[in-house]
Amino acid sequence: MDSGQDTARRRFAAARSARLATTLPDGRPHVVPIVFAVDGDRIVTVVDDKPKRSANLQRLRNVEAQPAASVLVDHYEEEWQRLWWARADGTARVVRGGPEWEAAVRLLQEKYAQYREPRTLGPAIVIEVSRWTSWSG
Amino acid sequence: MDSGQDTARRRFAAARSARLATTLPDGRPHVVPIVFAVDGDRIVTVVDDKPKRSANLQRLRNVEAQPAASVLVDHYEEEWQRLWWARADGTARVVRGGPEWEAAVRLLQEKYAQYREPRTLGPAIVIEVSRWTSWSG
Repeated sequence: MDSGQDTARRRFAAARSARLATTLPDGRPHVVPIVFAVDGDRIVTVVDDKPKRSANLQRLRNVEAQPAASVLVDHYEEEWQRLWWARADGTARVVRGGPEWEAAVRLLQEKYAQYREPRTLGPAIVIEVSRWTSWSG
Repeated sequence: MDSGQDTARRRFAAARSARLATTLPDGRPHVVPIVFAVDGDRIVTVVDDKPKRSANLQRLRNVEAQPAASVLVDHYEEEWQRLWWARADGTARVVRGGPEWEAAVRLLQEKYAQYREPRTLGPAIVIEVSRWTSWSG
């Protein structure tokens, strides 16, 4: 892995939120904000267990139909020379329970105090990152 | 337009940056941060005129091959009850010069002082929004 990829991954992993882009079954793009944790070249996120929330369900349906995912962290400020972003492109899958789901939740609990409080969680999305990219102004 | 769509559009329009998701010619998703302006049900953004910057070129190629676009504004803070996002889904096209390009640049100049300084600009992307969606925690 070259240093550009390392820089991108480090910036990415330190962020508190990101945006997950997937593809709808009809080919249109879909993008939602996520909280996440990074472990090596893997990104994990979980959905809250509220089955009627269509945004949660849509991202799962998308990943199950078309596994490609693009995840973006970006920094905005009015001094545009200081803008930066980092992106992870890879392959996503839905994990519904089992040791891999538990490992994903543990990673999120290490990063976010909010996940250490009682909370009913739904499926995880695990993204195997094939490319880390970053840019700064 | 119902009040939910109005709320989503108002929150969206007030934000300083957003994320544009498009679809690569091979069907994978692609997501980049943008600055933008909203005029009714239209979003405009322009790329800086640096032809070698592949991220700029990629979004133009994507839109020209597959016009569907999803644009996200989101707010993160550690108090998760205060999270919110707003999303615009619609159809994008590339505008290279002419009165429509000039109108897009004027909208951006009204919103961003940075665009009122000398700056060489490339093509605009104009997105006709068919659906505004929002969510809050």
